[in-house]
Amino acid sequence: MAFWEKIKEAFDLQAVLEAAGGILVTVILALIAQLIFSKLLDRLENRLIKKNEVEGEPPSESAKRIGTLIKLIKRGVYIAVWVVALVIVLGELNVEIGPILAGAGILGLAVGFGAQNLVRDVISGFFIILENQIRVGDVAIINGTGGLVEQINFRTTVLRDLSGVVHVFPNGTINTLANMTNEWSAHVFNIGVAYKENTDRVTEVIKQVCAEMREDPEFGPAMIGEEEIFGVDSFGDSAVMIKGRIKTKPILQWKTGREFNRRIKLAFDEKDIEIPFPHVSLYAGEATKP
Amino acid sequence: MAFWEKIKEAFDLQAVLEAAGGILVTVILALIAQLIFSKLLDRLENRLIKKNEVEGEPPSESAKRIGTLIKLIKRGVYIAVWVVALVIVLGELNVEIGPILAGAGILGLAVGFGAQNLVRDVISGFFIILENQIRVGDVAIINGTGGLVEQINFRTTVLRDLSGVVHVFPNGTINTLANMTNEWSAHVFNIGVAYKENTDRVTEVIKQVCAEMREDPEFGPAMIGEEEIFGVDSFGDSAVMIKGRIKTKPILQWKTGREFNRRIKLAFDEKDIEIPFPHVSLYAGEATKP
Amino acid sequence: MAFWEKIKEAFDLQAVLEAAGGILVTVILALIAQLIFSKLLDRLENRLIKKNEVEGEPPSESAKRIGTLIKLIKRGVYIAVWVVALVIVLGELNVEIGPILAGAGILGLAVGFGAQNLVRDVISGFFIILENQIRVGDVAIINGTGGLVEQINFRTTVLRDLSGVVHVFPNGTINTLANMTNEWSAHVFNIGVAYKENTDRVTEVIKQVCAEMREDPEFGPAMIGEEEIFGVDSFGDSAVMIKGRIKTKPILQWKTGREFNRRIKLAFDEKDIEIPFPHVSLYAGEATKP
Amino acid sequence: MAFWEKIKEAFDLQAVLEAAGGILVTVILALIAQLIFSKLLDRLENRLIKKNEVEGEPPSESAKRIGTLIKLIKRGVYIAVWVVALVIVLGELNVEIGPILAGAGILGLAVGFGAQNLVRDVISGFFIILENQIRVGDVAIINGTGGLVEQINFRTTVLRDLSGVVHVFPNGTINTLANMTNEWSAHVFNIGVAYKENTDRVTEVIKQVCAEMREDPEFGPAMIGEEEIFGVDSFGDSAVMIKGRIKTKPILQWKTGREFNRRIKLAFDEKDIEIPFPHVSLYAGEATKP
Amino acid sequence: MAFWEKIKEAFDLQAVLEAAGGILVTVILALIAQLIFSKLLDRLENRLIKKNEVEGEPPSESAKRIGTLIKLIKRGVYIAVWVVALVIVLGELNVEIGPILAGAGILGLAVGFGAQNLVRDVISGFFIILENQIRVGDVAIINGTGGLVEQINFRTTVLRDLSGVVHVFPNGTINTLANMTNEWSAHVFNIGVAYKENTDRVTEVIKQVCAEMREDPEFGPAMIGEEEIFGVDSFGDSAVMIKGRIKTKPILQWKTGREFNRRIKLAFDEKDIEIPFPHVSLYAGEATKP
Amino acid sequence: MAFWEKIKEAFDLQAVLEAAGGILVTVILALIAQLIFSKLLDRLENRLIKKNEVEGEPPSESAKRIGTLIKLIKRGVYIAVWVVALVIVLGELNVEIGPILAGAGILGLAVGFGAQNLVRDVISGFFIILENQIRVGDVAIINGTGGLVEQINFRTTVLRDLSGVVHVFPNGTINTLANMTNEWSAHVFNIGVAYKENTDRVTEVIKQVCAEMREDPEFGPAMIGEEEIFGVDSFGDSAVMIKGRIKTKPILQWKTGREFNRRIKLAFDEKDIEIPFPHVSLYAGEATKP
Amino acid sequence: MAFWEKIKEAFDLQAVLEAAGGILVTVILALIAQLIFSKLLDRLENRLIKKNEVEGEPPSESAKRIGTLIKLIKRGVYIAVWVVALVIVLGELNVEIGPILAGAGILGLAVGFGAQNLVRDVISGFFIILENQIRVGDVAIINGTGGLVEQINFRTTVLRDLSGVVHVFPNGTINTLANMTNEWSAHVFNIGVAYKENTDRVTEVIKQVCAEMREDPEFGPAMIGEEEIFGVDSFGDSAVMIKGRIKTKPILQWKTGREFNRRIKLAFDEKDIEIPFPHVSLYAGEATKP
Repeated sequence: MAFWEKIKEAFDLQAVLEAAGGILVTVILALIAQLIFSKLLDRLENRLIKKNEVEGEPPSESAKRIGTLIKLIKRGVYIAVWVVALVIVLGELNVEIGPILAGAGILGLAVGFGAQNLVRDVISGFFIILENQIRVGDVAIINGTGGLVEQINFRTTVLRDLSGVVHVFPNGTINTLANMTNEWSAHVFNIGVAYKENTDRVTEVIKQVCAEMREDPEFGPAMIGEEEIFGVDSFGDSAVMIKGRIKTKPILQWKTGREFNRRIKLAFDEKDIEIPFPHVSLYAGEATKP
Repeated sequence: MAFWEKIKEAFDLQAVLEAAGGILVTVILALIAQLIFSKLLDRLENRLIKKNEVEGEPPSESAKRIGTLIKLIKRGVYIAVWVVALVIVLGELNVEIGPILAGAGILGLAVGFGAQNLVRDVISGFFIILENQIRVGDVAIINGTGGLVEQINFRTTVLRDLSGVVHVFPNGTINTLANMTNEWSAHVFNIGVAYKENTDRVTEVIKQVCAEMREDPEFGPAMIGEEEIFGVDSFGDSAVMIKGRIKTKPILQWKTGREFNRRIKLAFDEKDIEIPFPHVSLYAGEATKP
Repeated sequence: MAFWEKIKEAFDLQAVLEAAGGILVTVILALIAQLIFSKLLDRLENRLIKKNEVEGEPPSESAKRIGTLIKLIKRGVYIAVWVVALVIVLGELNVEIGPILAGAGILGLAVGFGAQNLVRDVISGFFIILENQIRVGDVAIINGTGGLVEQINFRTTVLRDLSGVVHVFPNGTINTLANMTNEWSAHVFNIGVAYKENTDRVTEVIKQVCAEMREDPEFGPAMIGEEEIFGVDSFGDSAVMIKGRIKTKPILQWKTGREFNRRIKLAFDEKDIEIPFPHVSLYAGEATKP
Repeated sequence: MAFWEKIKEAFDLQAVLEAAGGILVTVILALIAQLIFSKLLDRLENRLIKKNEVEGEPPSESAKRIGTLIKLIKRGVYIAVWVVALVIVLGELNVEIGPILAGAGILGLAVGFGAQNLVRDVISGFFIILENQIRVGDVAIINGTGGLVEQINFRTTVLRDLSGVVHVFPNGTINTLANMTNEWSAHVFNIGVAYKENTDRVTEVIKQVCAEMREDPEFGPAMIGEEEIFGVDSFGDSAVMIKGRIKTKPILQWKTGREFNRRIKLAFDEKDIEIPFPHVSLYAGEATKP
Repeated sequence: MAFWEKIKEAFDLQAVLEAAGGILVTVILALIAQLIFSKLLDRLENRLIKKNEVEGEPPSESAKRIGTLIKLIKRGVYIAVWVVALVIVLGELNVEIGPILAGAGILGLAVGFGAQNLVRDVISGFFIILENQIRVGDVAIINGTGGLVEQINFRTTVLRDLSGVVHVFPNGTINTLANMTNEWSAHVFNIGVAYKENTDRVTEVIKQVCAEMREDPEFGPAMIGEEEIFGVDSFGDSAVMIKGRIKTKPILQWKTGREFNRRIKLAFDEKDIEIPFPHVSLYAGEATKP
Repeated sequence: MAFWEKIKEAFDLQAVLEAAGGILVTVILALIAQLIFSKLLDRLENRLIKKNEVEGEPPSESAKRIGTLIKLIKRGVYIAVWVVALVIVLGELNVEIGPILAGAGILGLAVGFGAQNLVRDVISGFFIILENQIRVGDVAIINGTGGLVEQINFRTTVLRDLSGVVHVFPNGTINTLANMTNEWSAHVFNIGVAYKENTDRVTEVIKQVCAEMREDPEFGPAMIGEEEIFGVDSFGDSAVMIKGRIKTKPILQWKTGREFNRRIKLAFDEKDIEIPFPHVSLYAGEATKP
Repeated sequence: MAFWEKIKEAFDLQAVLEAAGGILVTVILALIAQLIFSKLLDRLENRLIKKNEVEGEPPSESAKRIGTLIKLIKRGVYIAVWVVALVIVLGELNVEIGPILAGAGILGLAVGFGAQNLVRDVISGFFIILENQIRVGDVAIINGTGGLVEQINFRTTVLRDLSGVVHVFPNGTINTLANMTNEWSAHVFNIGVAYKENTDRVTEVIKQVCAEMREDPEFGPAMIGEEEIFGVDSFGDSAVMIKGRIKTKPILQWKTGREFNRRIKLAFDEKDIEIPFPHVSLYAGEATKP
């Protein structure tokens, strides 16, 4: 009958004032708490931006990224502060909060089992944004699917591949994350030539092709430093594999690599170096028995 | 004996009035809470629709989508409000709610383990609808199975593939989600020609085929911009691979691509460019030993 | 010693009456609650059937399906009502229900871990029946195994494949569910012809075969609309692939497809169109070195 | 010091009588509860057997199967009844059962994590027996391993394969369960013949072989109904595939199928129909370049 | 200050006596409980051994196996009894056991998550020993790895394969368990002969080989009953497969099978039956186009 | 205000003494408990070492291994004892430990979810060391990766493979554990010879090679007992497989096996036994149709 | 109304002083606790560094690594200390902390399910840094992806592979971790030579090549000790495999191995040792039947 009595008390001035006073104090304290957290988080934001500035990230981009994160944290803290305040106010009003909490607990548990994926996604997304592992415009490989990064949200990351297919990944399901355009990229080649060729001569021809490319006004600027020719990597069934690498500016590795392929083909044709078809040695089976 | 006494009290006017009053207050408060939540959610709905309007989505479609989501949230909030009200009313009636809650908790736990899949599905479905990743009529790939999107429900998403097979996916089991018809699509080709061909000449022929298609009244309008010919992508066992891409309007990539294949075949036949069969180089085994 | 005293009280008329009264009230309330739930669920059942009638499902089938679901829900609600009533009655009798509940909780937890599969199966089964994704008599693919649907129960779904093998799937383990006979089916063909053939001529022959089939009194009625010939789908190692589709009435796709295959074979033999064997181009290895 | 005082009370006649009385009442009530459950379960058993009798199962087998299940349920119910009785008796004796329950709870949790597999196995086994999906003597495929069913226990199912290897499957790990000998079986054949053959003539020969088998006193009785010849199923690399099916009595599909194979081989040899070896078409590589 | 007062009470003779008495009673009761459980378990042990004796297991082996299990159960029961006794004694001493239990609970939870594998292993091991699925000396396949069973412990099972590699499997990770030497074994053969052979003649030769082996003093006694020749199992690419089975005494299937292989090879050589190499039919590609 | 009053009490001699006394008693009891556990564990250590001595393990190695385990257990027990003592002391000081325990519980749960891997690793490591399954210096295969065991720690096991790559496995992730050098090893060979060879003659040659090796002063001592030649294991596509085994001292199987290979190659060359290349039988396709 | 009364008490000097005193005492105790933990952890840090110095790690690197770990632990301990202090202070102020704790518990549980991945990552990262398994600059293989280690953080480890692709691995998902550059590396070769070669002669040639390399001023210093030539490892389809190993300084195995390949190719060409192409023995199919 606590409620009914409360109604009667509603006409009891002093009790009303006391309850109102308790609520007032609680609300004021909650506002103060909110203010303090707000200031603290603003300071954290500034410090993080300054730190990243030192590490060379352009301030505008860094500020936007960190602002997004701080806004998310603020929202979470505000909700926590006001839920606690609400609970205290209900206590002031002598509402028994036990059952409400118990009900909320059971509901929370039931939803919690299902919503853990959501929480997991947001936490993963938080760290992807915080750690700046990939940015919009990078070419990334997520769980084995490559493409241009179109969006990085708290819940999902979106890639678009070469065929224009848009792939959506909940952040919590990202098991492998690779960034193909971080600072520098490279075209790694593994060219098979016939066993009858002299590998040193082949290496010479490759070097020459690279030298010509470096002087090309279109492809030269994309290349970083000298090409590396690692040498004879392995003995294949029908070919000797020559491995090497051309470092390029980010995202230019495919364009550079295909031009390299085109020129290698022309140079090998010219110098008569064979890229072999599959070989088979034939023996006539002995006549003794089938 | 709390019940029996309650029965006796039932004839005790004042107690009856008090209990009734308490229940009345609770119900009124619950109604007010419901009204407030309803208004808040309606405002949220309007704001979301306006925001999407700004982002270019047709209002009718957006309104329908958001309306669906808001209706689901409303239902959840109303149930929560009335369950709490019920618990308070039972308290007013001096019914001991402890055992009921405990029983509910145990039952909830037991069901919760099994029902988490259901909750997970609905939460995933909520976000698929909210984020508008795929729409009915798109061609999507879900967990590796492609098809036309027929329905997007809270619990399941339904695809129909080329053979008319209807695939049903609980939303919570969707691990990979790709949309093949978002804004633009593309036909990526990777054509193998014989090693003896000059790749520059092949590229010319491909360009010519694309130019003719762009002028075709049936296929030209489907194509977006110039074709891109990336160049010599790799050296296969028997063929040199030429890679390229034709951007098309959404869902037209297959029609465009197959016409492109048809014309390439005719053009290659005419210009005598070989699409090679698997090649093998034969050697006679040396006689020394078998 | 609560029990012993209860025994003594058993001879104490008033206490007996009071306890009996309390139990009576509880039982009456439980009966009322059961009645209300029963009425509510009956109304829900009628509404669902009417709604499905509007959506075109035959009422008898729909009624049976929904009746099954409502019966399951009713049973669950009745059990919940009477368990709560039992707990209250025990309270009336001053039996300490704390230990019983605690014991039940521990037992419930222990069983819950193991029984979650069962609950999961029933919940999944509930939705398979409710959403009508597959029906008895459909041909479905469950987790990659195809067959005729023989039974759909709350716990399991049963398929029988072409060899008469009966496959039993607990509903909770159904990850992929595909219905091959929903409204319409289709025979998708992907025919390889030799590179030397003119693809336009091949397309003509296929069209002719389909036209003849449409006029056949046995196979024509099974086909829906015109056949679709998509065109040159890809360049295989030894063959050019021509892709197309014939829409059919549900479950008739295999019969139609095999007749189509038979006629294509005859037509190709007659018109001298080659379905190629694997091709190999041979080169003699150069003599310089083995 | 509750125990010590109890010792002293042991010489206090009235207290002893009261405690003894309480225990007596509890035990009597427990016995009554056990009796009621026993009767209820016996009636359930009879009803289930009668129901199965209607559905055509031989009563003896059905009775044995259901008896096994009811015995398991009875044991569980009796244990639950007596554990509750024990807890109440301890309460009568003023033993604090809080600590014991708490201890049991912690222990239960610790074991529960590990024992969930066991509970899961028994629950799965319960349903395998209840639903009669496979019986001893059937040929079943469990998780991809086929064999004769040797035992179906509550915890495990045991198969023995053709090589005499005994496979033991805990019931909870059974993900796919297929019964190859339920009511009827079938031999599905998929025979490849050379492209040069006329498929209608091949179909005729197959029909003839089946007709002869149906008249054979050894194999005819095993076959059910007419054979079904589905027709030209697909175009292989070197062969046209003809698909069909012979329905047989359960477990006789292999014997029938192998005899069918033997006779097909003889018939094809006689009628000169070719079952082709892998085919290859050879081309001489063009001389222009290696 | 409960302890300090207890110290003072230590000089208070009566209190000391009372506490001591309570402890004494508890200990005596615990000893009685232990004795009763011990007797019960001993009787269970005897009953189990007798039951197995009836089922034909040699008593010594059965006794040892069951003794191991009973010892494990006894240990668990004794620990439970004395933990409860300790808790009661602490209560007698007015030590607050709440905090200790709470602390133990938290610790238990933390460890429980990690230790569940251990509990799972022991429970699985318990059932492997109880159900006697494999014994030391059997050849078993566990999770796809075959070998001689060297040890069966509560936590692990140990196999040694043909190369002497010792494989250790925690019992809880055993997903598939197969016993290759239970009562009888078999050599299943699947011999491919050329299409040109008459399968009936081949069957005759195989039968003759088996007949000779049955009369061989070394291999005959290993064989059980007549060989079974199932017949023409399938049509391979280059060979017709003849399937059959020779039942043998346990563990002798490999020795018997290899001797059978040796004799089949000799018999086929003598009778000029061809075990074919892979076959290829060659066609010259048509001249129209490459 | 409990604390403030405590401060005041601090000047109240008797209360101080009482509290100090309580703490003293608790500490003394804790020390005694620690001493008892220490003694018990030392005795356990001695018993284990003696037991292993009987089983033939060198005492020094066994002592070190068991010492490591006992030290870990001691640490765990001491921490438990002092945590309980701390809780009791806090109770003596009238500090409310409820909140602390509750806070610790929540924190414990949060960390527990994440730390379960750690606990699982340590428990697994404990048993790997206790059961002595692999030792430093053995060659082991863990989860399919083979190598020399370099370290066995409580959390990880470290292998180094032939290429010098160091593999680190958290003990809890070790699913398959195989020891290749336990007591004895073996080289299992499976040599394919041409179908035209007489298998008995081949067996003779293999026996001769083994006999010569046994007399070789370098390889003979590595071999254990006679070689086992199992016989004709299977009929391959182009070869008959002869299987056999040479037992060797641990870790010498590879050296012995490679020498065996070398000698077999020389012996086969000398005796003109063919190790066959892949065989193909060619047929000219019939002229009727391509 | 507890708050309101507290406001009134605010003007009640003594209560204020008492509360302030209690808070003061709590804060002082917390500061002391923090100081003690700080000192303890500093001493632990020094001891760990000294221990590693003994084990040969350079002090500067070790100090930095351990400093990072100690800082993380300190932060965790400080947070725990102040949370407990806050809870006690709130108790002093008569704020009911029950609801706050309960709310925190529910929230904690909800987040805990999602955040367990984060905790797991940090714990794994802690051990990767503590145990020094890989260092920045090593070449490591994580979950099958190899590359140069760029960063080791508490949450993630970052590799960059040969193509410049940056791979990010949350530490908790690292299942297999291999370090390719720990103390020493090795080039393992497995060279196939034709069956007609004498393996002893081949071994001689390989030895000679290695001897020359050891004397080369560029490659000699990279090699550690003599090369090991294991011998004839296996009989391939067309080649006999010779296996061996060259130990090198860390990270130099690829450079050394490729030079070895280059020289082997030249030496084999010179000495006329054949690295064979795939071999096939041809037989003409017998004329009896196709």
